[in-house]
Amino acid sequence: MLICSPHLDQTLDSGRILLSCEDQPGIVAAVANFLTDCKMNISSLDQHSEPQPGKLFMRVAFSCADSSSDKDVSGMQSQTFCDDFQNKVANPFGMAWTISDAKRVKKVSIFVSRHDHVLLELLWRWSNKTLPMQVDQVISNHQDLAGMAEHWGVPFVHIPNTAATKAQAEQRILAMLDANVDLIVLARYMQVLSADFVERFKNKIINIHHSFLPAFRGADPYQQAYDLGVKIVGATAHYVTDTLDVGPIIDQDVVPISHRDQVVDLREKGKSIERNVLARAVRWHLEDRILVEAGKTIIFD
Amino acid sequence: MLICSPHLDQTLDSGRILLSCEDQPGIVAAVANFLTDCKMNISSLDQHSEPQPGKLFMRVAFSCADSSSDKDVSGMQSQTFCDDFQNKVANPFGMAWTISDAKRVKKVSIFVSRHDHVLLELLWRWSNKTLPMQVDQVISNHQDLAGMAEHWGVPFVHIPNTAATKAQAEQRILAMLDANVDLIVLARYMQVLSADFVERFKNKIINIHHSFLPAFRGADPYQQAYDLGVKIVGATAHYVTDTLDVGPIIDQDVVPISHRDQVVDLREKGKSIERNVLARAVRWHLEDRILVEAGKTIIFD
Amino acid sequence: MLICSPHLDQTLDSGRILLSCEDQPGIVAAVANFLTDCKMNISSLDQHSEPQPGKLFMRVAFSCADSSSDKDVSGMQSQTFCDDFQNKVANPFGMAWTISDAKRVKKVSIFVSRHDHVLLELLWRWSNKTLPMQVDQVISNHQDLAGMAEHWGVPFVHIPNTAATKAQAEQRILAMLDANVDLIVLARYMQVLSADFVERFKNKIINIHHSFLPAFRGADPYQQAYDLGVKIVGATAHYVTDTLDVGPIIDQDVVPISHRDQVVDLREKGKSIERNVLARAVRWHLEDRILVEAGKTIIFD
Amino acid sequence: MLICSPHLDQTLDSGRILLSCEDQPGIVAAVANFLTDCKMNISSLDQHSEPQPGKLFMRVAFSCADSSSDKDVSGMQSQTFCDDFQNKVANPFGMAWTISDAKRVKKVSIFVSRHDHVLLELLWRWSNKTLPMQVDQVISNHQDLAGMAEHWGVPFVHIPNTAATKAQAEQRILAMLDANVDLIVLARYMQVLSADFVERFKNKIINIHHSFLPAFRGADPYQQAYDLGVKIVGATAHYVTDTLDVGPIIDQDVVPISHRDQVVDLREKGKSIERNVLARAVRWHLEDRILVEAGKTIIFD
Repeated sequence: MLICSPHLDQTLDSGRILLSCEDQPGIVAAVANFLTDCKMNISSLDQHSEPQPGKLFMRVAFSCADSSSDKDVSGMQSQTFCDDFQNKVANPFGMAWTISDAKRVKKVSIFVSRHDHVLLELLWRWSNKTLPMQVDQVISNHQDLAGMAEHWGVPFVHIPNTAATKAQAEQRILAMLDANVDLIVLARYMQVLSADFVERFKNKIINIHHSFLPAFRGADPYQQAYDLGVKIVGATAHYVTDTLDVGPIIDQDVVPISHRDQVVDLREKGKSIERNVLARAVRWHLEDRILVEAGKTIIFD
Repeated sequence: MLICSPHLDQTLDSGRILLSCEDQPGIVAAVANFLTDCKMNISSLDQHSEPQPGKLFMRVAFSCADSSSDKDVSGMQSQTFCDDFQNKVANPFGMAWTISDAKRVKKVSIFVSRHDHVLLELLWRWSNKTLPMQVDQVISNHQDLAGMAEHWGVPFVHIPNTAATKAQAEQRILAMLDANVDLIVLARYMQVLSADFVERFKNKIINIHHSFLPAFRGADPYQQAYDLGVKIVGATAHYVTDTLDVGPIIDQDVVPISHRDQVVDLREKGKSIERNVLARAVRWHLEDRILVEAGKTIIFD
Repeated sequence: MLICSPHLDQTLDSGRILLSCEDQPGIVAAVANFLTDCKMNISSLDQHSEPQPGKLFMRVAFSCADSSSDKDVSGMQSQTFCDDFQNKVANPFGMAWTISDAKRVKKVSIFVSRHDHVLLELLWRWSNKTLPMQVDQVISNHQDLAGMAEHWGVPFVHIPNTAATKAQAEQRILAMLDANVDLIVLARYMQVLSADFVERFKNKIINIHHSFLPAFRGADPYQQAYDLGVKIVGATAHYVTDTLDVGPIIDQDVVPISHRDQVVDLREKGKSIERNVLARAVRWHLEDRILVEAGKTIIFD
Repeated sequence: MLICSPHLDQTLDSGRILLSCEDQPGIVAAVANFLTDCKMNISSLDQHSEPQPGKLFMRVAFSCADSSSDKDVSGMQSQTFCDDFQNKVANPFGMAWTISDAKRVKKVSIFVSRHDHVLLELLWRWSNKTLPMQVDQVISNHQDLAGMAEHWGVPFVHIPNTAATKAQAEQRILAMLDANVDLIVLARYMQVLSADFVERFKNKIINIHHSFLPAFRGADPYQQAYDLGVKIVGATAHYVTDTLDVGPIIDQDVVPISHRDQVVDLREKGKSIERNVLARAVRWHLEDRILVEAGKTIIFD
C-alpha cells in the first residue's frame, strides 16, 4: 500500500492519513511520533476542530524521511504500518481513519449524457496532469460524446438507458466498473442512479448540479433561475446520496447574471463554473482532501 | 417636477423616464424626437427587449440642452411636459411610464431592529453623498441604534412592537411616514409588515435578506446555511411583497465560506455583502434604475 | 453588406453601427429616425458619454422591421444605406462610424505556440456556436498543437520562427492570411510581431497576457508574481500595439492565490482566467461591441 | 505571558507560536510533544513548506489542557515556558520563533488623514469585537476625523505635518505612542514616514494602498488606473518598508470597473475593497497569523 520511493521529492507524498475522533489532548503528538518512529517526514498536516460536539478531524501527508533508502516498503511493510497505526494511535484515541498510498493513481469512471463541457474539462486536465487519475472509461446513455473520448484516448462505452431498461442498464454499468474504482464522476449525467448503486459507492460518486444548492433542485435549474429572476447562478459539486440533488456539498461557485440574460445565456455562463467546480471537487477527492461528517464535508485544501 | 438648471453639468440630469410597452419599431425615434423637440439632451438611454413575449423596457435620462437658459421649467411647464409625453409618445405605443425629476432628492425612511451594520452603511453613504436621499427618520422596534442615528444627525423613532401591539405599532409607523415617502428600507428589520402596509407602498419597500434567495427563506438563514454545509453564503435585496422573503430580486452577492466557519463567522462574513448589496439596491431605486415586470426586476445600471 | 432576412428572429440582428462624435443634442433622434426611415427596428442601443472632453460613443444594433419581406437588401441597397447614413447622419454631427453586417460570419486566424488551453477554449466555443466566427487556420511556430486543431477540423499551419528567420516567417504568415481577416487572436503566441504587421491590422489583433496589466509586463509574469508575493494573479486581453504588452485593454480578471502556491500553481490557476478573459474579448470583437478611443476601450456589453 | 484560564473554551486560545526553520523530519513531533508535556492542547496547527530552499513555517495555537485548573501560569511559569521551548525545541532545530499570549489584547495606533471610510471600518469592527484590539489613539495630520474618533470613544490626536515640520511631527507622534505598541495602522494616512520610524516598527506598520500593487505605486492610483483604462481596480494591504508602496503584501482584492466609471467612481468602488482588505490584514496581525520571509508573507488563515 505504501511506497517509499528512493528519489522522493517534496511534491510527491508517500501516503496520507485522514482521521477523526473526539477532540482531546495529545492527538497531534501521537500521530507525529508514530510517523517519526516509522522514519516518515510530515509534509503537511491540517486539522479542524468542530466545537459542538468537540470533534477533531485531521489530514496528514507524509513522505519517507530517508530518501537515500532503496527499500521498497510497499509490500510486506504496509500492512505492518497500518496494524501499528491501529494499535498505537487509532485505538487509544478511538479514531476512524483511512490511509491511502499517495503513489497509487486512483481509478476513475466518468458518466456523461450529451453535454460536452464538463467531460472536456476533465479529460483536458487529466491530459495535462493536473488531475492525477486513471480514467477507466467514459460511460454514456448517448453516443454523442464518443468522438471526444476517443480523441483523448479514453474508452467510451454506450449503455442505452430507458425507463424500461433502467435496472438492466445499471447492471451493465456495474459489470463495466472496476471493483475497486475510486471515484465515479457524474459529469452532467442525466440519469438517476438506484439507491443500491449509490450505497455501494458511498462517498465515491461526485455529481455536478447546475445551481447553488439548496436552490433549484431537480430538472432544468437554469430555467427555474430565470423564472425567479435571480441575479446570480451557481454550480454545486456534491457526493451523491439516495435523494436527488441532496448530498454532502464539496464545492460551489457562482457567476453574476442580469435581466439581459435569457435561459440560453444562463446555460452558457453556467458552463464555466460547472467545469471549474467539478474539476476542483474531483482533484480534492483524488488527493484525499475530503472528510464527510454528518452530511457535510471538511475540505483540507 | 422638472427643473432645468442654468448651469447643468453632465453628471446632473434634469429628468428620467422609465417606460415599457410592446416591442415595435419607432419607439426610440419617438422618445428621442419628443425630447429633442423639448430642447432636452439625452444623457443616457438604455433599453432591454424581452423576446417572449416581445416587450420593450427603456430608461432615458436627459438634461436641458440649452444650458445658458435661465428659465425654470419646474413649475408651469412640467405638467405640460408630462401631458405632451402622454399624448404624443405614450398613447400611440401603449406605454406604461413614469417621469421623475432628477433634481428632487428622494425621501427615505429606514426601519431597523438591533443590527447596526446596514444602518451604518446607509448613513455613511448618505453622509458622503453617494446615496442621494433625504433620510426622514430611522424607525425601530428597539432602542439599540438610537445613538448611531443621532450621531449622524437623523431623527430616531422608537416604536415597540409585540405580537399584541403589532397592528397599533404599524398605525404609529404610518403616522410617522411622509405621505409621499419614496422608499422604505428594511435594514435588517426583524418584523413582518402587514399585507395592507406592503400594498400601500408597492415596489417602494426594499428588504435585505441574509441569504441568496430562494435558498434559506425565513428565520436565521446563516444557521440554515451552516446546518446544510454550503460553501457560499449570500445576501439578497428585494422589493417586499405580502409573502415573506419573496419579491422581485434587485441584487445579490455571495461570499465563500468553509468548514472552518461557525455560524458566528457566517454572520460576520455575511455582513460585508449585506451592506454592499442593500446600498447598491437603494442607490438604483433612488436613481430610477429599476423596473419591475412579472415579479422580476430590470436594472438599468 | 446588410442582409435583411425574411425570417429574422430577435436574436439575429441585421446590422450594427458603432459611432463616435462630439456630444451634442439630437444624436439619438437622428440615428433613430434614419433607421426608422429605412424600416429598420432598433434591437439594442447603448451609448456612453465621456465628460472630459464631451464626447459621445454609441452602438446600435438593428433588424429589418418588415420581417415578412422577401427582399434581400444585401446587394444593391447596402451601399445606398451607407451613403445615406454618411450624408444624413454622420456628416451633420461629424461622426466617425462603421457599419457591419451582423449576418456575415467574421474570419479569424489564431496564432499559438505550445500552450493548449486557450486554443482549446476557442475551438470548443466555436464548435458549440458561442463564438460566431470562421476559423481560417491555426498558425504556430511549433508543431505541438497540430493534433488539437485537426481534431476540431481546423487547418493547422506550422511556420517555424527563429531570430534569423523572423522577417521571412512573418511574410509566410501574411501570405496565409485572408486579406480581409477580421481578427487575429494571439492565443499564447510567444513571438513578437513587427511594427509593420501590427500597423496593418490595427485594432484587429487581440493578445492574452497572463498578468493584470500594467503589472508584470514581459516574460514569465507568473514567476514575477511569485517573486513579489502578490495575493492575486490576473489575465488581460488587449489589442496589440507596437509596444510589448501595451495596448487598449479589453478585459481583465483575477484569481486569488496564497503563499502555498508555487509558480506551477500560478500557471495552472491562471489558465482558467486566461481562457475566459480571451474568449470574452474575442466574442465582443466578433459582435462589434468594442470602440477604441485614446488608447482605451469602450465595451458595449 | 501565558494565561491558563480555568474556564477556557475552544475559541479562546492561551498562546500561539510562530516559527520557521530548515525543513527536516521530527519538527511536528517535537513541538507537539513539548506542548503535551506542558499540558497544553493544540487547538490548531498549520504548516507550510517552501521547497526552494527547503524551509518550514508553522503556526500553533494552544490552550490549557486541564481546564479545571485554577492555576495562573501567566506569571512565574511563562518565562520557564519560553526558556524550555528555546532549549528543548528551538535550539535543536535552529528555529526562529515567537510566542504570544493570546489572552493579551494588542495595542494599536491608527494614523489617518482625511478619508473616513477605513477608520470607520476599523472602529466599527473594534466596537463589535471582530477586531480584538485596544485602540490607543487615532493620530492625524488633519482635524477632519476628530468627531468620528470621539463618537466611538477613542482618543484623537491632531499633529499637523508640513514639509517644514515633518521631523518634529514625527517626534511628537513617537512621544504619543506606547513603547510596546503592537501595530500601527496607516488607514489612508497620506504622509511618508521616515526610514528610522519604519525601522523602529519593522513588520508592525500596515498600510492600505488603493491599487493592486505592484501596479500604480505613488500618488492617486485611481487616476492612474483611469488613464490607462484598466478593467479592474484593487487594494493592497502591506507592511511598510523604507520604500514607498513596497513591502510584504498581506492581502489584496479587486473590483471590476468599466468605461462608464469616472475617477470619482473608481474612488467610490475602491472604498469597499480598501476597508475589507485592511480590516482582514489587521485581524491577521492581531491573531498572530502572519510570518514575513524574504519580503513576502505567509498567512496562516
